[in-house]
Amino acid sequence: MKLDSNIPYKIYLTEEELPRAWYNVRADMINKPAPLLNPETHKPMTAEELSVVFCDELVAQELNETDREIPIPDDIRDFYKMYRPAPLVRAYCLEEKLQTPAKIYYKFEGNNTSGSHKLNSAIAQAHYAKKQGLKGVTTETGAGQWGTALSMACSYYGLDCKVFMVKCSYEQKPFRREVMRTYGASVTPSPSMETKVGRAILKEHPGTAGSLGCAISEAVEVATGLDGYRYVLGSVLNQVMLHQSIIGLETKTAMDKYNIVPDIIIGCAGGGSNLGGLIAPFMGEKLRGERDYQFIAVEPKSCPSLTRGVYAYDYCDTGAVCPLAKMYTLGSNFIPSASHAGGLRYHGMSSTLSQLYADGYMEARSVEQTKVFEAAEYFARIEGILPAPESSHAIRVAIDEALKCKETGEEKTILFGLTGTGYFDMYAYEKFHNGIMNDYIPSDEELQASFARLPKVEE
Amino acid sequence: MKLDSNIPYKIYLTEEELPRAWYNVRADMINKPAPLLNPETHKPMTAEELSVVFCDELVAQELNETDREIPIPDDIRDFYKMYRPAPLVRAYCLEEKLQTPAKIYYKFEGNNTSGSHKLNSAIAQAHYAKKQGLKGVTTETGAGQWGTALSMACSYYGLDCKVFMVKCSYEQKPFRREVMRTYGASVTPSPSMETKVGRAILKEHPGTAGSLGCAISEAVEVATGLDGYRYVLGSVLNQVMLHQSIIGLETKTAMDKYNIVPDIIIGCAGGGSNLGGLIAPFMGEKLRGERDYQFIAVEPKSCPSLTRGVYAYDYCDTGAVCPLAKMYTLGSNFIPSASHAGGLRYHGMSSTLSQLYADGYMEARSVEQTKVFEAAEYFARIEGILPAPESSHAIRVAIDEALKCKETGEEKTILFGLTGTGYFDMYAYEKFHNGIMNDYIPSDEELQASFARLPKVEE
Repeated sequence: MKLDSNIPYKIYLTEEELPRAWYNVRADMINKPAPLLNPETHKPMTAEELSVVFCDELVAQELNETDREIPIPDDIRDFYKMYRPAPLVRAYCLEEKLQTPAKIYYKFEGNNTSGSHKLNSAIAQAHYAKKQGLKGVTTETGAGQWGTALSMACSYYGLDCKVFMVKCSYEQKPFRREVMRTYGASVTPSPSMETKVGRAILKEHPGTAGSLGCAISEAVEVATGLDGYRYVLGSVLNQVMLHQSIIGLETKTAMDKYNIVPDIIIGCAGGGSNLGGLIAPFMGEKLRGERDYQFIAVEPKSCPSLTRGVYAYDYCDTGAVCPLAKMYTLGSNFIPSASHAGGLRYHGMSSTLSQLYADGYMEARSVEQTKVFEAAEYFARIEGILPAPESSHAIRVAIDEALKCKETGEEKTILFGLTGTGYFDMYAYEKFHNGIMNDYIPSDEELQASFARLPKVEE
Repeated sequence: MKLDSNIPYKIYLTEEELPRAWYNVRADMINKPAPLLNPETHKPMTAEELSVVFCDELVAQELNETDREIPIPDDIRDFYKMYRPAPLVRAYCLEEKLQTPAKIYYKFEGNNTSGSHKLNSAIAQAHYAKKQGLKGVTTETGAGQWGTALSMACSYYGLDCKVFMVKCSYEQKPFRREVMRTYGASVTPSPSMETKVGRAILKEHPGTAGSLGCAISEAVEVATGLDGYRYVLGSVLNQVMLHQSIIGLETKTAMDKYNIVPDIIIGCAGGGSNLGGLIAPFMGEKLRGERDYQFIAVEPKSCPSLTRGVYAYDYCDTGAVCPLAKMYTLGSNFIPSASHAGGLRYHGMSSTLSQLYADGYMEARSVEQTKVFEAAEYFARIEGILPAPESSHAIRVAIDEALKCKETGEEKTILFGLTGTGYFDMYAYEKFHNGIMNDYIPSDEELQASFARLPKVEE
């Protein structure tokens, strides 16, 4: 292994260097993301309307398009110190194995029990819920990373935590459920008989394996029906992008310290929380015209909202109880094939990232899951870390770009987000090892049929 | 949370500060650990005899009682940089929750995909196997941490890796097996029909769930029967204690930097690899009369080799193909109750630690597993990290000691080893949550019957 004596294998910031404020990329956007709309009136949601569903301070963050910096409360910053700053790793072994002139870095967010970056926003949302004097929060989880993160955060603050877990994940990942129970959360498979929405869906589709959109509807219904509860969401929202900016801020501080400038920044994209967080401060420089970067969002071919979706107002959930959001979407009724493993299965995409993508500030690519797992196993064997299927989408494209550099001889600096570990995804790895993992690519007809059911919204 | 402004939440050394040599505690022992004996002649094993089973350089390390420092080859040190230095964490949240005047620190070894400290020795053993030009290695694994670590190390060096996994673990932990497969290892449930020893055991006990001692015999049989293969072991041996001294060396460097002196050092003890590694440099100071420390080995009440075993020569494995070792032992036929979850189930104990214990340099305690899981869950909720059942033995005693300080008002500094994470132990956590976990304490009669079968060795 050829180590560069100037750059350590892992760059750790000190706790003092941990950022003191989140960065709000919307402040630097000329075209702001489109506002959330009331699903009945189609008028922009007011703070008052939003505060029925979300904590007050999170509503303020959701609507704040002007403040570039939002201070991180000391209490959250102290919690961050339990697992942050997260290391920025130079992929020396991978570079050597690929024989590429490219320099590859990854920001590793998996060194905490939730196993991913989701904890960055979970602790913030739990903090504000506690500050508001709430009893608890509700949420949905798919692959289980967000539910785990939230259960940890709620346990820390002594809040009740009710998680609706997409039924197929609940059954395939009993150990994820058990981790959440360790942290005191209650976990209900969705759709359930506990909500009106759940009962209606079960009546219409008795054998359904559930979907994120349906679990969101159930969680919102419970939160709005209980005294002292609010709903929290682990991706898509502007507030989540804000909290996740900690990823990019740390990365940029670490890179600046060693005079490293990335040419390409790559992140997997489901709802956009990791990608939005990783690129935030770099995107800020690009928006302000200070420096150019190539940003690549990577999504599954089986759920290709940016690469094949439409940019339109859509429901955030199946039950249509949430506000409408303008985003790249496959339609709120779109459910990725059962053969799709792991997360990144949301039908839409963060409004902020959607606007940036529409304005040409970033690119998007979609990849087949067998190619993703090939990259995952390759990476595990070379760099040691067994990656989450989600993160492996970014690994796939990082390797592809490094191989391009090998052909052209370019010494590009590639940065990607390694959002988490795959320890609770071995069921999918097993399918891959046994050669029974399939790729699924939705047909144009399937997508057109889904688009036809989008709500009609006049802008 | 009350952070001490002088001491960060996590103390990370730089990669430059990573130790350049392992520390060999035997060099400072007046009473050296008793030599391994040939199981047939009962004479000390020669290097030549040992090299049939083990790699040459590891044999040299096994027999080396004089060199205080053994340089860490650059190649191993570079691999260490992929996941080390490991953080020394100040358990601020735990201290606050316990309202104890004690200061609590833990050295966290779980930030790597093997999930434990086992990788420290696995990479060293794989390195020497590669250097010797071997094709591959064989080993056994119980809870699966060692097998995972070795499969990662072998994958890095392109060595074949054959793992015999105790059958009950193989069945209860399919995902551990799948991680090993991700790294290219072959995993066979033990006892198997692939070896003479396995076939004999299956004939005598057709429904057996297997044991570590039996899996060791199978792995040794395969290694000695194949050209270009050697056997490697993840604990008990002197060479393993040596490699694991990296844990204690890093800890001591970090503590010295901040002028922290531990009063009590606590580690869980199965074969002794973690405990021996953690305490090594501190024990060196005690042996040389430079400073006194209280060392506490913590073992399960269901497998209490130090607290209830005898100090005698015994077989290391069930099939009696390995050398005899003098150690605290429950008898090589002792198998902990099926109700025992997690590792720490070896019948014996490192010869080095056994000698130190016999000479009064350290204490030992045994704890019930329900009390261990109580501590594990408590710790997870407060400190965030979901601990391995093994590590939680140390947590249990660290909490007990901190509570004693609360009573007495003493401001002791407590250090314990957090050897790994429990992500693949959720089956056991589930039993605990569902209230169906039992404690098992072997009866005196059971132990006496086992002691009666010890080999007769004249010393």
